[in-house]
Parts: sequence; structure tokens; C-alpha cells
Amino acid sequence: MQDTPLSQIDDIMRQATLAFEAFRHATPEARAALLEAIAVEIEALGDTLINTACQESNLPAARLTGERGRTTGQLRLFAALVKEGSWVDAVIDTALPDRTPPRPDLRKMLFPIGPVVVFGASNFPLAFSTAGGDTASALAAGCSVVIKAHPAHPATSTLVFEAIQRAIAQCNAPAYLVQHVLGNGFAIGRTLVEHPATKAVGFTGSAAGGKSLLAYAQQRDEPIPVFAEMGSINPVVLLPQALSNRAEAIATAYAGSITLGMGQFCTNPGLLLAIDGPELDHFLPLLAQAFHQIPAAKMLHTGIHTAFMGKMKAALAQKGVETIAQIVVNDDDIVPDMAVAQVNSRTFIDNPLLKEGVFGPYSLLVRCRDAADLEAVLQACGGQLTITFMTETEEIAAHRSLVEKAAQLAGRVVFNGVPTGVEVSAAMMHGGPYPASSDSRFTSVGTDAIKRWTRPVCFQNCPEALLPPELHNNNPRQILRRVNGDFGTSRL
Amino acid sequence: MQDTPLSQIDDIMRQATLAFEAFRHATPEARAALLEAIAVEIEALGDTLINTACQESNLPAARLTGERGRTTGQLRLFAALVKEGSWVDAVIDTALPDRTPPRPDLRKMLFPIGPVVVFGASNFPLAFSTAGGDTASALAAGCSVVIKAHPAHPATSTLVFEAIQRAIAQCNAPAYLVQHVLGNGFAIGRTLVEHPATKAVGFTGSAAGGKSLLAYAQQRDEPIPVFAEMGSINPVVLLPQALSNRAEAIATAYAGSITLGMGQFCTNPGLLLAIDGPELDHFLPLLAQAFHQIPAAKMLHTGIHTAFMGKMKAALAQKGVETIAQIVVNDDDIVPDMAVAQVNSRTFIDNPLLKEGVFGPYSLLVRCRDAADLEAVLQACGGQLTITFMTETEEIAAHRSLVEKAAQLAGRVVFNGVPTGVEVSAAMMHGGPYPASSDSRFTSVGTDAIKRWTRPVCFQNCPEALLPPELHNNNPRQILRRVNGDFGTSRL
Repeated sequence: MQDTPLSQIDDIMRQATLAFEAFRHATPEARAALLEAIAVEIEALGDTLINTACQESNLPAARLTGERGRTTGQLRLFAALVKEGSWVDAVIDTALPDRTPPRPDLRKMLFPIGPVVVFGASNFPLAFSTAGGDTASALAAGCSVVIKAHPAHPATSTLVFEAIQRAIAQCNAPAYLVQHVLGNGFAIGRTLVEHPATKAVGFTGSAAGGKSLLAYAQQRDEPIPVFAEMGSINPVVLLPQALSNRAEAIATAYAGSITLGMGQFCTNPGLLLAIDGPELDHFLPLLAQAFHQIPAAKMLHTGIHTAFMGKMKAALAQKGVETIAQIVVNDDDIVPDMAVAQVNSRTFIDNPLLKEGVFGPYSLLVRCRDAADLEAVLQACGGQLTITFMTETEEIAAHRSLVEKAAQLAGRVVFNGVPTGVEVSAAMMHGGPYPASSDSRFTSVGTDAIKRWTRPVCFQNCPEALLPPELHNNNPRQILRRVNGDFGTSRL
Repeated sequence: MQDTPLSQIDDIMRQATLAFEAFRHATPEARAALLEAIAVEIEALGDTLINTACQESNLPAARLTGERGRTTGQLRLFAALVKEGSWVDAVIDTALPDRTPPRPDLRKMLFPIGPVVVFGASNFPLAFSTAGGDTASALAAGCSVVIKAHPAHPATSTLVFEAIQRAIAQCNAPAYLVQHVLGNGFAIGRTLVEHPATKAVGFTGSAAGGKSLLAYAQQRDEPIPVFAEMGSINPVVLLPQALSNRAEAIATAYAGSITLGMGQFCTNPGLLLAIDGPELDHFLPLLAQAFHQIPAAKMLHTGIHTAFMGKMKAALAQKGVETIAQIVVNDDDIVPDMAVAQVNSRTFIDNPLLKEGVFGPYSLLVRCRDAADLEAVLQACGGQLTITFMTETEEIAAHRSLVEKAAQLAGRVVFNGVPTGVEVSAAMMHGGPYPASSDSRFTSVGTDAIKRWTRPVCFQNCPEALLPPELHNNNPRQILRRVNGDFGTSRL
């Protein structure tokens, strides 16, 4: 597949601007129809898409079939969201001409910001890539999109892009509404982010990649928002009573979660925290036993394999780190070893290397002296996508401060589950304090992801004919609005 | 007044963190009571506050009395907002255990982010300073606040801070919930922004100041949000039919708006755009005449006076710039000259100096050939707080693309009014694309300003006893929530 020449980026972004100027006026119904057509066209690719993605990513067909369902589900969810229409957060304060001073008529709602650059993720070649959540939410908002395909799956990305193009043609949407850029290396991504026409960036991937894009965006003459979801180590707190009551179930669930998709999830539980005691001593052999049941499998690509093996070996070689369970594969190419190790809290807190994410099937258990020590370990880990508690309800009630600390450090706090598995819904928050993501105020999964591509504009004393329908007196779209302080769907 | 030593900042931020840890658990009623008590204590300062602010700012007593009303009004508005409670954007998706895969119970709402540093503004010693909108909204959200007093009004700031302290004592709020830092020079502001305990920054002032704070915040190990409202030139489009029908009224309104408070408003109309023709030729002498009626007055401080006189003289000296009206005062200290000048569109677009903000009683009229030329001038001006149209309704209907361009460039689009005068209400948007403000997604005026100091946290399968009341099944606070996609105040 041919790399896109750097010299084409300027034309691409110029077309993206023109397409945005046209598409921002598309009705919500037209936007929704396009999103639905993209879903249908992706489904029409059938096994070709699944087989191509399997070949490029080494992910099993069942997993990719599920991911395709997530992808088309997201497209239809955003279609439903824009058809319903209340997401624009319309607020109206009507004029008070008799007040001193008089209050003008003020009407505000969210508007799309402009061309968005989306970087595909290697670990989700469908749901977080070409027609993934970033693209779906940006189109739903009314933005144009330029996709930088992940170099690990160019053929998959091209298939999906062609499906999008067919949908665009069917719907008479602007031809350049979605564009596709192929290429390896930093230069092309940097050029896209630095182009003056680019108004926002979506990224899911490594901390190094996300931080680079953020720096490019901030150094522009006009800085732009970057929504980089950079993963985290997702601490899991195993409290004694839960370990005592459900040791086997927890061991099985966590051996599975640590190795799910060969650990290639941004919500992979890279850290387990537990309090020293007989419950933990009983649990660890069960975890080791469950871990040894996990079949080895290929990673996404050799680059990830090399990075993982290097980082895991470095972690295991640290003073005070003791292996609990290890599966050695001896493959230099793509199938990783897997391991769980343990370390005491003091050693963990003092060694910065142990707090770094290891992207792959590896987790470190930190033995803490007591709940206060465990809270200190949590604090030392910094911003997270998720923090999980395995606990009994009576037990956690005595540890409110642990839960409060978790809510200060993470975007999502999970009870008695695994952090892997990110529901696509209105209440989801996928994103957390830096460095888990670059902007902890926004989610990249679920309907609120649309907010990333918008900003509010207020119209003061605007003639009604010039207002968007969402702000008309008679509320023709029957959306929920805040009018003079009250929420409702009524007309003025 | 003694400067706060740099060596004290670490202790101050440590106390701010402890105060936040306590105050984030305060009930909405307790937060509201504190905000209301601060309003009462500010009112109790009576003439002492007004006289002190007059002395330090040179603003007339009537203006400061109005500004005090705005300040206490904001405090009470945020008190009402937190008592009502729906601002937390609660979203609940209940469990679907029978779905494949099962959906967990997910509940999300906004939480306060931590200690906030607020920089007082010189041009609003009350409403945008010590107990201004930033402080009021941050306390409403549940954050602690460290105020950096503006060096132009330390005594005013200290009076207000003492009022806040009395309110804190009455309400049994944490003693260090609000702290006050005095000092000139960059070091103290930089130290506050760079301190690891600081979680967000609010600033209203110059572009140079705002950009510095933004850079400090982005260079931290953990970057934090900066909400810098840096002002803009606020273009005003004068369309021919309006000029033909209402020349005198527009001339009077704009002579007043350009010189209001000696031009020291971030929404001051620094640029007028009009189309060449007899309507404009008729209007300009009327504007000059109205302008000459404006009495001279002192600026806020000599630093602003010096900067204004230098910038205005440099603008008037540019090739192609012709003075329409000028009031020469010949005061080297504090009373400024005032001027309105004109230039053609080509000269304006080609000369970057003319697009820079001139903070003070000065405005430049750009003569455009036609509407397309006028749109090009707008585009060349970049991000704005406001763009205003003086127009007849029939007339503007033929210029939809001008209005659309304005909505892409500004946070607020005004019709047949002046941009000065920023209503404090739910529908207000005060903030615009860079460089008008550092984050165009958030407003610094009105109830939505509270969102700046928060981020969403999602709880998955959380025992109800650990959830905040806003997310309980029975909706004890009777707030508006989105439950399984539907908005309402009902219980589950």
C-alpha cells in the first residue's frame, strides 16, 4: 500500500475544510443516515473484513467479529443521538426588557469545531480505528474527518475507508468528508496535527505517541485540543474478605483479564494491590494455577512483542520483584511470554520503573501492610483510566477513603468486575487524569464522546430566521432545553 | 502591603489540598450557605470597599457599585445552582444482566478537580477578582481556591479576602479553603501554576500573561487546564441599511461602547467593519461628533496608560490609517487620549500590527468593498470573544454566510447591541477561539463556568452506600438525570 506523500497533506486539509463547511449544515437526519449507511457498508464487507483484520492484527476472528459489532453499534448509537438531538445542550435565556439593565435574549448550543484528525489504534483495528468511536462521534457532531490509518493494519483500514466512501456517495454527503492517509513514521502525523486547518485530534495509543501529538498541537500558532487516550496500569485492589470468600473466582477472572487479547487493552489490569495476610497467601497459588491455563497467542505485531518482552524482563529483573507465575514461550518474533510477579509496597513506591505500563500479558502484585499503605501505593501510581475494587460490600464500607482516592485518580471506578470491557453507553467515562489521557474532562467511549468535537456559541438578540432550529421558539426538534433555568421540551 | 514570600507557596498549596479534601465532602447546602455568606460579608464592607476600589482603580463609584452587585449576584447565582443540583450532569445506565455480554450498572457525574489558582483582573477589581466569577464557581464546584491578588488593587483584594474569611468562619468551612497571595512580578504566579498540588488555573487579563501561564501549565509533569480569558478586538459589522436607518443611534451607542470604562473591557469593540458607500460616508461624521462628547477619564493604572498610548500611536502612524476623531489630553500619567481611525481592507489585512488588540478607548474602522471582502477581513482577525452585527433583519438574511463565519470565529454573536455588557446567565458564553481564550469550550461567565473546575467520574457496579446522593436510586436531591437514555427527575 502506497504511503500518502507529505506534499498532499495541504490539499487534503483544504478539502477537509470545504467538506466541513458543507457538512456542518447537514440536518441531523442526514448525519444520522450517513452513520447508519457506514454501518451497513461495513457489515456488507462480510468475512473479507474479518479475514483481513485477522491477518494484519493476529487477533482471533471471534474477537474481531465482536469488535465489528461494537463498531457498527457505535455508529448507530451516534445516529440515534443526533436524531434525538438534545446532545447540543441548548440553553435559552429570554429577554427581560424591563430589568435594569435590560437583559438581552441569549441562546446557546454546541457547534462542530471543524476538521478532525483521527489516528487509528493498533489494538482495536475496527472499533478504535478508521470508522471507530472517534470518527463516528466527529461525523455525528458535524465535523469532517481525516483518518491516519495505523501502519499495522493498512489493508483493514482501506477496506473500511472504502465502505465509508460508498456510504458517502449513497447519502450525497461531501465527497471529501472523510479522507484516508497511509504512512509510517512521525512526519505524516506531525504534519497533519500542525496543519492550520486541523481543529482537533483524536488518538488512542502509547503515552509516547500521545504526548508527541499533544506537544505538536500546543506549539501551533493556534493551539488545538488533542484527545489522546494513552492507557494506564489500571490498579486492582483485592481486599481480604473478598479474597477469603471468592479466591478461585477472582483468580480465574484475573488470570483471564490480565491475558485477554494478550494484554493488549488500555484497561488491562497491570497492577494488583493486596494487603498481606493469610487470604493473600491462599489466593496467590490459585492465581498462578489459573494463569497457567492460559494458552499462548500472537501479539499484534513484532514491534509490540519486542517492546513487551523488553519491558517485562526489565520489570522482573528489578530487586525485590519475585515471579508468581510465568509462561515461557521462547518465541523471538510474536508470541509473548506471560507473567505475574509480586513486590512489597516500599520497593514499589521507590522504584519508578515498576510504575511504568507494560503493554502485554503481565501484571505486578504489590503487597501492602495495611489499607493506609495501600492508599499510598494508589497515590504513587498517578492518573488512571480505571481503578477496580474486589471487595464485599460490608468490607468496603470501612474503606471509604480508598474509594474516594480512587475517584480522584481515575476516570472509572469498578467494583467486583474486571476493568477490561468498556461499555459503550451514555454513562461511560473512558479517559482519566494525566497521563491516562490528555484531557480527563472528556470520554472517548460512549455518547458523550461527541462533546470533544464541539464548542458552545451564544447568539444575542439574534433574528429567529438566522438561528439554528434547536434554538427556535417553537422547538421544532422537540429537544430537551434549559429555558430561563428550567429543563423541558416545551415551546416558548 | 507585604508580598507573599515565594517560600510560602508550598505551605499554601499543601493547605489548599487539605482544605479541598475536607470541602469536597461538603453538602450542596453547605457550599451554597458559604457563597451566600460571602455575598453578605462583601455587602457589609459598605462604602469602605467602594472607596478603596475607587482609589486603587480610578473607576467611578457608580461603576464599582454596579460591579459589586454583579459580584454578589454571581455568588448567589452559584449558590442557587448548587442547591438545585442538576449541574453535576448525572447519567445512569442500569445493569442489563441478561444481555450478551451483560451490561454493568454505570453511574457518572461531575466531581471537583482540586485546588484552583485564580488570578485577579485589573479591569474588574470585584467581579473578576478576589470573590469574582472564578472563585465563586470554583467554590460552588467544591474546590479550594488560592487567589493571586492583582498588584493594581491589593487593598481592595485584601478587604474582599477578609470578608471571605469571616464567611468561612461563620460557616465552619475549612480555614484554608480560600487563601490570598500578594505580589508583583512573574515569579509568584509561575510558582503557583507550577506547584504539583494546583489542579487548574483561572485568569482574566492580557494575552501575554495568559499565554505565559498556559505555557507553565503545559510544561508541568502533569499538565493542568488553564482558563485564560485574554480579550479580543471584538469586530462590529455595520451593515448599510442599519446605517441608513439608524446612523445617529449607532454613532451614539458606539462612541459610548468604545470608550466605556476608558475602553478597559475585554469585550471593547476595537474594530468596526463597514462597506464603502453613502451610508458610511453619512455615518462617520456622526460617529466623530458623538465621540467628541465623551469626557476624558483616568485609566486603571499608569502601566495600562503607557501601553495604550504607545499602541494607539503606533496604530495611528501606520501607512493608510486616517484619524476620524481624536481627543488629545496631553497627560503623560493616567488620562488617555481617545481616537477612532479608518483604513481600507487591503491595508488592514496586510498589516499584522493593525490586528493586534489596543486595550483602551480606541477603535479602527475598516472600509470593505463588499460583503465578501468584509468576510475576508473577519477571517483575518481570527478567534474573538464576540462579533457584533448592526443590521436590519431583512438585510442580514441576505448575508447568512457572514453570520456563519462569525459563529465559527467567536464565542458570542451579538445583533443590534454593543459587545460590552456580559450578562451573567446560563446561556452566556464568555470565551472564544484562541487567542480570545485558551479553551473555547468553556465560559468564564454564567452558570456553566462551574464546569471548568470539574471532571466526570463513572462508578461501575458500585454499592449504593458508596455512591454520592446524586446517583442514588431514589434521587434524594430530585435533580434532573439521564437514566437509560431518558431525562427526568424520577427515582429508579
